[in-house]
Amino acid sequence: MTDDAPNPALLPAGLIDLLPPEAEREAALVETLLAAFGAHGYERVKPPLLEFEDSLLAGSGAAVAEQTFRLMDPVSQRMMGLRADTTPQVARIAATRLGLQARPLRLCYAGQVLRVRGTQIAPERQLPQVGVELIGSAAPAADAEVAVVAAEALTRAGVAGVTLDISLPTMAGVLLEAAGLTVEALEARGVRAKAARDMVAALRQGIDRKDPVAVLTIAERAAPLAVDLADLLPRLLRAAGPADAALAVLKDMALPPAARAIADNAAAVIAAIRLRDPALRITLDPMEFRGFPYHTGVAFTVFGPGTTGELGRGGRYLSLNEEPATGMSLYAEAVQRAAPVPAPRPRVFVPVGAAEEALTALRAGGFATVRALSEADAPRALRCTHILRDGQAVPIEKKD
Amino acid sequence: MTDDAPNPALLPAGLIDLLPPEAEREAALVETLLAAFGAHGYERVKPPLLEFEDSLLAGSGAAVAEQTFRLMDPVSQRMMGLRADTTPQVARIAATRLGLQARPLRLCYAGQVLRVRGTQIAPERQLPQVGVELIGSAAPAADAEVAVVAAEALTRAGVAGVTLDISLPTMAGVLLEAAGLTVEALEARGVRAKAARDMVAALRQGIDRKDPVAVLTIAERAAPLAVDLADLLPRLLRAAGPADAALAVLKDMALPPAARAIADNAAAVIAAIRLRDPALRITLDPMEFRGFPYHTGVAFTVFGPGTTGELGRGGRYLSLNEEPATGMSLYAEAVQRAAPVPAPRPRVFVPVGAAEEALTALRAGGFATVRALSEADAPRALRCTHILRDGQAVPIEKKD
Repeated sequence: MTDDAPNPALLPAGLIDLLPPEAEREAALVETLLAAFGAHGYERVKPPLLEFEDSLLAGSGAAVAEQTFRLMDPVSQRMMGLRADTTPQVARIAATRLGLQARPLRLCYAGQVLRVRGTQIAPERQLPQVGVELIGSAAPAADAEVAVVAAEALTRAGVAGVTLDISLPTMAGVLLEAAGLTVEALEARGVRAKAARDMVAALRQGIDRKDPVAVLTIAERAAPLAVDLADLLPRLLRAAGPADAALAVLKDMALPPAARAIADNAAAVIAAIRLRDPALRITLDPMEFRGFPYHTGVAFTVFGPGTTGELGRGGRYLSLNEEPATGMSLYAEAVQRAAPVPAPRPRVFVPVGAAEEALTALRAGGFATVRALSEADAPRALRCTHILRDGQAVPIEKKD
Repeated sequence: MTDDAPNPALLPAGLIDLLPPEAEREAALVETLLAAFGAHGYERVKPPLLEFEDSLLAGSGAAVAEQTFRLMDPVSQRMMGLRADTTPQVARIAATRLGLQARPLRLCYAGQVLRVRGTQIAPERQLPQVGVELIGSAAPAADAEVAVVAAEALTRAGVAGVTLDISLPTMAGVLLEAAGLTVEALEARGVRAKAARDMVAALRQGIDRKDPVAVLTIAERAAPLAVDLADLLPRLLRAAGPADAALAVLKDMALPPAARAIADNAAAVIAAIRLRDPALRITLDPMEFRGFPYHTGVAFTVFGPGTTGELGRGGRYLSLNEEPATGMSLYAEAVQRAAPVPAPRPRVFVPVGAAEEALTALRAGGFATVRALSEADAPRALRCTHILRDGQAVPIEKKD
C-alpha cells in the first residue's frame, strides 16, 4: 500500500461486481435453466475452474486457446489454464470418468468462464456459462432434443418467443469440393499452391459475405466446374429464412450427394424438433458457416425476442474418441437481460425485542425478516417494505 | 500433443470433477443456504473471480496472500489475484459501491475460491465458499445474528445438531498485556528486545498448547506481575466447555478491566443467541486464539454432529474504513458431507414415438423424462427407474 495506491473500487476491465438484486437474479436464473435440463434427464457435472492446459485446450478447447489465462501450478510445475469454455471439460469427463456409462449420455453444467480479453461489443471477461451436452448419438433426434430442451429452459426462465437459427456449416465446403474448388483439386489441375489457397479463401469469403457474383467470378477462372455453382449458389444463399420455406427450396434442388445428405439431415432435425415443440420458431441458413469452426452437422444460434440478441449457441460436433455429440451453451447474462425482472422480495422490519415465533411463518411466506440490532435501526433506511406489528407484516405506507 | 502426452483424465492435485449426482447436490445445497440467508435479509453479491491483487489482498485479504494464485492482466499490465477468500471482496463492495447504503448492511455470497496449495488434511485447491457479512454494527446482537442465521441455514440443509464454538481470540493478548508481559513492557523493564520477543512468543505458544505450567514458568522470570496469572490462567484454560458453565466461571473471576469487557461481551452475545435460538448448542473457549488472526471480538467455529468436523468459521472483525463487522463462512463441501443424501430423482424412460403431452406433467411431478433417441436405447442402461406406458410412469421391476 503506497500513497498512490489505486482506487480500491476499481476492477480490471471486463470484471464486475454483481450487486443486489442482480446477483440473486442471476443465480436463480441459472438454477431455473439447470432444473429444466435436469427434468429432461441431463445430469449435472462440475469440472474445476483450473486444469492442465494440454487437457483443457485439447479438442474443441483449441478454439479458445488464445482466450485462456495461463498460470503455473507450483505443485506440479506444469502450466494450467483458467477455463474459457466448459464444453471441452465436459467432453473430457464424458470420455474418461464417464467413458463406461451407457450412451447417449446427457450432461449439463453451469459455471464461470474467464477470458483474457473482451471485445468492444462484449467487454465482459467473466461470464456464467450454462449448457447441455448429449454425447454418443448421431441421430437427428439428438440435435432436436438439445434445441427443444434449451428452448424449454428459456421458456421456464420467462423468455418467450425465442428463435432457433439453424445453420449448416459444412455445406459451403461440401459444395466447393463437389465443384472441384478445393486446394487439392485446383493444384491437380495445374494451379500453383499459393494461388489455389488464395482462390479457395476468396471463395469462402464470398460465400460468407453472401455475394454470389464474387464467388462465381472467381469460380469462372477454374471452369469447367463439376457442379453448376451458378445455378445452385444464388438459390442456396437466397433460401435463408423461415425453416419450412428454406427446406422446400433445398428439397427441389439438384444438389450433389454430400450436400443432399446435409440438407436431408437438416430436414430430419427440423422435423424432429417440430414433433416435440411445434410452436418453436425456426430459421435455416444453409450457407452460413462462420463461428462454428468445429461443428460437423447442424449448428444452432438461439435469439431472444426483439432486440435481446443472441442467448446461446451450439450444434453437432465430434467429441473426444470421435464420439458423435451435440450440445448447446446458454449465456446466462444475456438470458437475464431478456427475462422479465422478478418482483423484489418483500422485507419486513422486526423491532428490537420482538419474539422469534412469528418470523418463521413470515419467512416461509417469502418475506425477508430484517431484525433491528439497535433502536437506531430504521425500517425505511433498511429498505423494508413492511413492519412487524402484533405478529403481522404491515405494509409501510409510501408516505407518512 | 506428443506421444508422451499425459493422461487427459489427470487433473492437477486438489482439483476435482464433481460428477452426478454430487454436482447437483452441491448446487442445491448452496442455494438452500443462500435462501436461508436471504430470508433473514442478507442480499446476495457476486464479486469477480479475479481482481487486482492490491485490492484483493488488502485488509483481511492479507491473511491469504500466500495462498493466492497471481496472473498478469494483459489489458492493464497489472497483477491480478484469483481469489482465495471472498470476504475481502465483500468488504470492498461494502466500503465502495455500497458505501452509502444504510447500516447495518447485510450481504451474502456464494462462489468458488482457489488456493495455491492444499494441506495434507484438506487437499482441495478449489472450494465452494458460502457466507454472510453483517457490516456496520458493533452490537452483540449482530454477532448473535450471524451465528443464528448460519445455524438455521445448516438446519434447512438437513444438518441437525450443530455446535457453535465461540472463542475470544483477543483474551490471551489482553491478559498478557495486563500482566505486563508484552514486548514493550518487558523492554521497559530492561529485557533485551530479542529476549522479550522470544518470551512473548513462548507465552503465547504455552497458552495455545493449553499448558499453564509452561506459561507460568516463563512468566515467573518477569515477576512481579501486575496480574495474578497463576490464579487466572489455569482457571481460564479449564473454563473451556459448554457455554453456560464457562460463562459462570468467567463471571466469578477477578479479571483485569480489558479482559472483563471481553468476557462480558461474550456473555451478551451468547444471551442474544439464546433469545433467538434457545436450542443451539454453544461451547466457549476463552483462551483459544489460533486461526483467527484478524478477529477483534468473538470468533465462531461451527461443528457438525458426530465426526463431520468443521462446517464453517467466522467472527467479529474490523472491515475497511474501520467499520465494525461480523460474518460467517460455511464450507459447502463439508456441509454436503454432513447433510443427508437426498433421494435420487426418478427417471422415466420414454420410448421412441411417445407423444410429448404426458411428459410435461411427469416433469412437473419431479420426474426426469429420458427420451429414447433410437430403438437401441434401453431403460436400464440409461439408469431409468420407470418406463412410460399409456401416459403413466410405471416402475421398472428390479428383476424381470
